[in-house]
Amino acid sequence: MIHNLTTNDTIVAVATAPGVGAIAVIRLSGPEAISITNTVFRGKDLTKQASHTIHFGTIRDEGKIIDEVLVSLFIAPHSYTKENVVEISCHGSDFIVQQIIRLLLQKGTRLANAGEFTKRAFLNGQFDLAQAEAVADLIASDSALSHEVAMKQMRGGFSKDIKRLRAELVHFASMIELELDFGEEDVEFADRDQLRTLILNIQRIIRDLLKSFELGNVIKNGVPTVIVGKPNAGKSTLLNQLLNEEKAIVSDVPGTTRDFIEDEINIEGITFRFIDTAGLRETTDKVEAIGVERTMQKLSQSSLIIYLFDVTDATPEEVQAELERLNPKKLPLLPVANKIDQASPAVLAAFASIDGMVQIAAAEGANLDDLKQALVEKVNLGKLNTQQQTIVTNLRHVDSLNKTYAALDDVLNGLGLGMSGDLVAADIRRALYSLGEITGEITTDDLLDNIFTKFCIGK
Amino acid sequence: MIHNLTTNDTIVAVATAPGVGAIAVIRLSGPEAISITNTVFRGKDLTKQASHTIHFGTIRDEGKIIDEVLVSLFIAPHSYTKENVVEISCHGSDFIVQQIIRLLLQKGTRLANAGEFTKRAFLNGQFDLAQAEAVADLIASDSALSHEVAMKQMRGGFSKDIKRLRAELVHFASMIELELDFGEEDVEFADRDQLRTLILNIQRIIRDLLKSFELGNVIKNGVPTVIVGKPNAGKSTLLNQLLNEEKAIVSDVPGTTRDFIEDEINIEGITFRFIDTAGLRETTDKVEAIGVERTMQKLSQSSLIIYLFDVTDATPEEVQAELERLNPKKLPLLPVANKIDQASPAVLAAFASIDGMVQIAAAEGANLDDLKQALVEKVNLGKLNTQQQTIVTNLRHVDSLNKTYAALDDVLNGLGLGMSGDLVAADIRRALYSLGEITGEITTDDLLDNIFTKFCIGK
Repeated sequence: MIHNLTTNDTIVAVATAPGVGAIAVIRLSGPEAISITNTVFRGKDLTKQASHTIHFGTIRDEGKIIDEVLVSLFIAPHSYTKENVVEISCHGSDFIVQQIIRLLLQKGTRLANAGEFTKRAFLNGQFDLAQAEAVADLIASDSALSHEVAMKQMRGGFSKDIKRLRAELVHFASMIELELDFGEEDVEFADRDQLRTLILNIQRIIRDLLKSFELGNVIKNGVPTVIVGKPNAGKSTLLNQLLNEEKAIVSDVPGTTRDFIEDEINIEGITFRFIDTAGLRETTDKVEAIGVERTMQKLSQSSLIIYLFDVTDATPEEVQAELERLNPKKLPLLPVANKIDQASPAVLAAFASIDGMVQIAAAEGANLDDLKQALVEKVNLGKLNTQQQTIVTNLRHVDSLNKTYAALDDVLNGLGLGMSGDLVAADIRRALYSLGEITGEITTDDLLDNIFTKFCIGK
Repeated sequence: MIHNLTTNDTIVAVATAPGVGAIAVIRLSGPEAISITNTVFRGKDLTKQASHTIHFGTIRDEGKIIDEVLVSLFIAPHSYTKENVVEISCHGSDFIVQQIIRLLLQKGTRLANAGEFTKRAFLNGQFDLAQAEAVADLIASDSALSHEVAMKQMRGGFSKDIKRLRAELVHFASMIELELDFGEEDVEFADRDQLRTLILNIQRIIRDLLKSFELGNVIKNGVPTVIVGKPNAGKSTLLNQLLNEEKAIVSDVPGTTRDFIEDEINIEGITFRFIDTAGLRETTDKVEAIGVERTMQKLSQSSLIIYLFDVTDATPEEVQAELERLNPKKLPLLPVANKIDQASPAVLAAFASIDGMVQIAAAEGANLDDLKQALVEKVNLGKLNTQQQTIVTNLRHVDSLNKTYAALDDVLNGLGLGMSGDLVAADIRRALYSLGEITGEITTDDLLDNIFTKFCIGK
């Protein structure tokens, strides 16, 4: 593990979102964070104050007042980065933030890189790499489940699982390596059967973790969903009904800006992300090749299909045929009968044969709760206990878990072939290396850069 | 003065700009701010901590962790609002902010109205009304001068001037009212000559303040500027050169979002706001009525005109004629000769007669500093000492100053006509009332609502 520990300088960045707010917060971290702030602060002598205290005063550039501020002090190691940290809470104007940062740069700080505060927190042992990554996930979380999974990972749930697996492997690796020291004497400190059992057990756990990624990905990135159906089946009406209801829920707390979300809805904590089906609308009832191809392409990007039909303008046979035609890949597919308020009981009864069908009247907003419930069940989260189960959401972790699994396969093969201890030990070390990448026991500068540059500035 | 003191409840709002950032800050103010936060906080008992201290812990909704946070405590009266204030610093996700605010609302807070924190600060005597208004100006400030003027006002510079005037008038009003008590005895406690001198002096000061508004308005809202000239004189090139340079300056501190500013440049702290002259470009060299009318309309909205001409495609006589034609209202007008790199010294010499002309080569960026200097001089800030002089930037204050001035005219008239003490006293009280409106000694709920609803939520 090689770390380029460039934490001997003091970094500065704005920590709050840009734009106009009541306040903005500028954050400094590094050995000189407090002393540099003190040179531009008029108030109490900051270098003589206790950690976790707040001080009112002014930031001045050679006598000229830039702002009245509150300065919060965190003295090493009792801070996020475990270095000296200062947070300057100023008026929420980009102009003022810019003036203060410029002044602090002049006094010897440098602008922080993206994620550099969290990187320093990791390098200084505040938390491991998987936890650090969860900080970014937490900030990006926009649904109850993505938030919950990120929070659990940040608080070390996932790391604990990985570390336990690692500890067990380390035990065997050391036993085998001990044998190598006694190489001439042909002793076996490591019971081969016990090792095989352990490895099979670890592989089972890794398989569960890998399987959880399917779900983790859905939780983190939403469920790509298409609504298909003939023209006038009511697709737009349905989408608008779903979206409007969501928007109403969101907007009852001011200050949240989710206007950019036009095609996402959140049901019971799961985000359903609607793939634009504009190109589909006029083509699903035509057999022309191009239309079908485009439909299929859109469908192949989705994880869930809603097939919407107008009960007053369809037959059960027709619907059944469409359901099969649309879904060669056997994705989760939800048949939804629309305009049931305009159909006779006899007509509705005729559709009873369609498996798992939901009946709605989109324009009236009738039975939308049934539809939502069915959507949630299709995603198959019903079986999940997010409180207890660890869920992998990060592609990097998937990659490392796969590598670990493959190395453990090699260990098993080696044991089966009666390979010598040093070769088995090498494969175990390879598995340990890959596991260690997840929590950051094993890192490289490239890996760290790759992770932290995805963070925002100031975090 | 009637205040509806609804400060017995506890308010909550997000205090930082919306959007993704490293952190967001949620602010509470009111008697229960600390105790309510304590019900959702897992960490130290917040009700037993000192003011101006920071505490790490988690916000929990019935055991479920919403976020890891830092809680800052400000115990009344040592806070912005002089009430108990809590600032919760959480991860900068709108989702998390929303969850925490929802939870706090459930526990007995209510959402703050726009500007309600600052309104409470005013009502609780933290500062006067002119200072409170300056808080909003400060947040909106986007240039060095607008920032400086707002800062000075927030720190009480303007208020001090107004209060001094008021104190002097109050003295005379009380003397005259004393005479009324001795009405039968025909005594004069208030020296009428001295009063006249005082009022003339106050009127002089008010005139200066009113005059400063012309400048104050420019500082706060920018100088509306048009660039006119024949097609191909280089107007777009010049504007781009000025804008690009500005953008480069701005963007060297990340996190500032000024992308929306397309037609503003900032020179020596003054904002020049360019009025869209798209409609002008093809019309200035035509005498057709519509073209001229539109040109003149645009020009009438501006405070400063740049007349740009191509030295290789104009004669001094032509330029002189245009300068007069374009400027019937005698606005500050700056003649700018472009493409001087393509002209011979003889040609340039021919233009020497044009008063105050600046010579540039826009495409090459040559002499742009001369142009900027000339623009700044045209705005006539050269004579201004912003450090010492009080500058009025608020239309409401202008209105109150005008009313005060008129009331003082009535006082002078009354004195001249030898009017009785009670009538003179009534006019003085009217002047006092108007002055008092500025600093908020005199307010109404309507006035306060009008002022504070313009603030952002959370301030």
